[in-house]
Amino acid sequence: MTNTQLTLVQIDNYGPWTVTPEPRREMDLQTMQSRLFADLANFIGARDGYVFFTRFDNMVAVTNGLDGEDHALLQESIGNRYPVTVSLGIGVDERPAVALEHATERLQQVGSAQDSTRRQVLRGTPLSDEHRTETDVHIAHFDVNDATGKYTDQLNEFDSFIQIEQGYAAVMRYMREEHDALSFFVGGDNIIAVCPALSATQYHDAIAHVEESVGVELKVGVGAGTNAHDAGFAAKHALEVCRHDGTTVEFGSGAEPAEAESD
Amino acid sequence: MTNTQLTLVQIDNYGPWTVTPEPRREMDLQTMQSRLFADLANFIGARDGYVFFTRFDNMVAVTNGLDGEDHALLQESIGNRYPVTVSLGIGVDERPAVALEHATERLQQVGSAQDSTRRQVLRGTPLSDEHRTETDVHIAHFDVNDATGKYTDQLNEFDSFIQIEQGYAAVMRYMREEHDALSFFVGGDNIIAVCPALSATQYHDAIAHVEESVGVELKVGVGAGTNAHDAGFAAKHALEVCRHDGTTVEFGSGAEPAEAESD
Amino acid sequence: MTNTQLTLVQIDNYGPWTVTPEPRREMDLQTMQSRLFADLANFIGARDGYVFFTRFDNMVAVTNGLDGEDHALLQESIGNRYPVTVSLGIGVDERPAVALEHATERLQQVGSAQDSTRRQVLRGTPLSDEHRTETDVHIAHFDVNDATGKYTDQLNEFDSFIQIEQGYAAVMRYMREEHDALSFFVGGDNIIAVCPALSATQYHDAIAHVEESVGVELKVGVGAGTNAHDAGFAAKHALEVCRHDGTTVEFGSGAEPAEAESD
Amino acid sequence: MTNTQLTLVQIDNYGPWTVTPEPRREMDLQTMQSRLFADLANFIGARDGYVFFTRFDNMVAVTNGLDGEDHALLQESIGNRYPVTVSLGIGVDERPAVALEHATERLQQVGSAQDSTRRQVLRGTPLSDEHRTETDVHIAHFDVNDATGKYTDQLNEFDSFIQIEQGYAAVMRYMREEHDALSFFVGGDNIIAVCPALSATQYHDAIAHVEESVGVELKVGVGAGTNAHDAGFAAKHALEVCRHDGTTVEFGSGAEPAEAESD
Repeated sequence: MTNTQLTLVQIDNYGPWTVTPEPRREMDLQTMQSRLFADLANFIGARDGYVFFTRFDNMVAVTNGLDGEDHALLQESIGNRYPVTVSLGIGVDERPAVALEHATERLQQVGSAQDSTRRQVLRGTPLSDEHRTETDVHIAHFDVNDATGKYTDQLNEFDSFIQIEQGYAAVMRYMREEHDALSFFVGGDNIIAVCPALSATQYHDAIAHVEESVGVELKVGVGAGTNAHDAGFAAKHALEVCRHDGTTVEFGSGAEPAEAESD
Repeated sequence: MTNTQLTLVQIDNYGPWTVTPEPRREMDLQTMQSRLFADLANFIGARDGYVFFTRFDNMVAVTNGLDGEDHALLQESIGNRYPVTVSLGIGVDERPAVALEHATERLQQVGSAQDSTRRQVLRGTPLSDEHRTETDVHIAHFDVNDATGKYTDQLNEFDSFIQIEQGYAAVMRYMREEHDALSFFVGGDNIIAVCPALSATQYHDAIAHVEESVGVELKVGVGAGTNAHDAGFAAKHALEVCRHDGTTVEFGSGAEPAEAESD
Repeated sequence: MTNTQLTLVQIDNYGPWTVTPEPRREMDLQTMQSRLFADLANFIGARDGYVFFTRFDNMVAVTNGLDGEDHALLQESIGNRYPVTVSLGIGVDERPAVALEHATERLQQVGSAQDSTRRQVLRGTPLSDEHRTETDVHIAHFDVNDATGKYTDQLNEFDSFIQIEQGYAAVMRYMREEHDALSFFVGGDNIIAVCPALSATQYHDAIAHVEESVGVELKVGVGAGTNAHDAGFAAKHALEVCRHDGTTVEFGSGAEPAEAESD
Repeated sequence: MTNTQLTLVQIDNYGPWTVTPEPRREMDLQTMQSRLFADLANFIGARDGYVFFTRFDNMVAVTNGLDGEDHALLQESIGNRYPVTVSLGIGVDERPAVALEHATERLQQVGSAQDSTRRQVLRGTPLSDEHRTETDVHIAHFDVNDATGKYTDQLNEFDSFIQIEQGYAAVMRYMREEHDALSFFVGGDNIIAVCPALSATQYHDAIAHVEESVGVELKVGVGAGTNAHDAGFAAKHALEVCRHDGTTVEFGSGAEPAEAESD
């Protein structure tokens, strides 16, 4: 059974800031946003968590293993180095979407994302060490079969991107609706999903759904671990097995497929 | 009439690098990718161009005003500071999608994106100064009506993101298919499209299409200029007019709406 | 009694790299070097250590609290994101200069800094948790009295810099020779020294020496802690007391001045 | 004859910011400072200028080729991405120290570096294009003979650093006092000096002075150009000639040694 700890990272009052006193140069915003994300990836990644850029002003992190002090340090350090501050909400649940719901509500309760007086809030309780297990986090790492050969080397880049994007949009909605899993595009032809325990059949069904609905062929490696990095690393290795053996769904060490009836 | 200069920035042989000799830590890849994008945004932005992260391993830039030397310098500088190198293809056309097609083909002709011997290629001819005009670039800056009130402060962050993502997917396909325009999500609830000259009606139709198909309400500011920054800045100011006046489509100074029959 | 854990961070074979195949653009080197240092500062700082840029190709870190795994992760992460790799040598001793000697020797023993086959070496044993104490690290934070009023707002910037630099050079040599302490310029008019336990008299003597030899007037706050951040933070607060009270040497909480006869 | 354009980059009211409301984490300051410098190096370097970190809160740039608009853009972009702002003073003169004096005075005239109301000032007039020549900038690139063999591979890193530092301190003062040249340590065993036109004898004398006073043996390559990069690149190549031929002073193409009587 999974127990995912998710952190919502929300830039405080960002929208208004971007146009005050007048609109700021778009490329300055892009530079600042992507470096802020890079810093989060570096900080959280070094503690074996994952973070996804999502909308950049709101980012979602898998933070199993990060305690309250780590969150406070991250928040302080960002505030010391950027022109903006961030608020952090933490939620924990077996189902990733529910964990994020808790995380989000904790920030919503203390004010709007565009409330100029709500700054550097930190809410929610991380999973205590004694409740952590070896399989708290399940990660599924999807990629597109032969994306380079079929798209990148054939189509103009935007049309390649449309294909990948459609595949992503289909996975994202299916996994959210069917399994309360959260799927994120991470560049290239890669999608990383934070999942509850799912069976091989459930992954096959997801892949079949995407192929039927938008014609994009995926494969997936699945891993479990006590944190996002361990789970994600096992998933990457499992995906390498897919590549090598031509298979579609592989579970890495530690990731017991859920029994078919579990869902 | 527009004359868009687009540059495809492609990381050389990136997929294989990410798993050699074994899969690299995902957050290291995320950090590296997003900082590379930030550097491109900073370099190109300071020359009044725009760049979009697209798939991160392939990025699309609007480079009107950047000559061959600028491109070569960018390429050299990236090679000196990153563990990866980039190839650059340049294309120019009235229609953005066609310009990108030219840019992409120039790289495809000299090898695959995963060809280990194809490195730091620079192909294509930038627009010469004497052919540049005040309206070469048209930028449409869309955002979602009251995204904070309707989504960010109400839904969990992933469900907010799904809404925004669906709006983006709908715009992106419609604008590509109907107008050969290229639309990019730039964070928050913002979408920036590189367009040919379009009429107000055509923008209204695009917005209506998105609302009908996925229920997301957009508004748009449109700007024109000799480069992406000038066009984009005018578009941002026009979007502020939408916000202030409650209108849906506004053209900034310099952006003559195309006549309805022009398309 | 102090017990300082120092890590030497050495870029592997950097000199040759900077001129191969021909000299690289100086500003690319500066950008790369200073970002690498920033990443080290961010990583080590978040674990309550300190790092100093020293010569940039060789950097010195106070790493009490970082274990072997932390060092390995840092090394791997740098290797994944930069065009260069780093080797790390760790040394522990009561006297900072001796700790650094151990750290340096561990790298020297396995090859030259310009040995093209010596890459990503990690040598030395961090202090185990059971041997760590509340006063392992002593930090002295010096600054120049009224540097803004006397130099920055009066002289051209280079002549201000010469004054500060002379003060630094004098402190650095005195503290090294008299006390095996390591002093680093950290910007502005600030010098941070990693010290053994010293008495108030010893600090007064150091300051008197600098004033006599180069005419630069310093003050100093001293702190102790289980790691560099705790010691350094106490030192900063003590320095604020100097500023407020007009005193020259202040010890922060936790930093017992060594008895005069201890040295 | 040289005509050096220097820009003083001064962080506005930085000292007070670093301790408000209480002292900020030192490693956050180090990260922020060194990234700010990296961004300046990247921006100015891409326009063929040079920038030196000096004291980090005050940095000195050689900006021949950057006009007022470039300076304004840099200032705006920093303000959009950092928690601090910068003021810029520009000075031009045949003698680098005099140019910097002009640059510094322009900022001093409008307020103190710690004046909380003096922000984002931009003062001084860049060299106009019609007055620029092929030899406006002279760069001398010094390094230490066999620093790796004599210091890095032999001494502990701090003692190596003391040697390099002493060499630097000696060069810096000599070149400032004798020739109004500005010398900057740029990492490793490298010193870059911005000079007026000097003869080979004058460089030999400088090197002899350093060896006699502190026992550090230097060699130097000298280059001239219309901007810092061209001059510095020629200097780097000339230094490679020193390395190859075992010589002590070499002038690159374009750098006519000044006649001995010129000084």
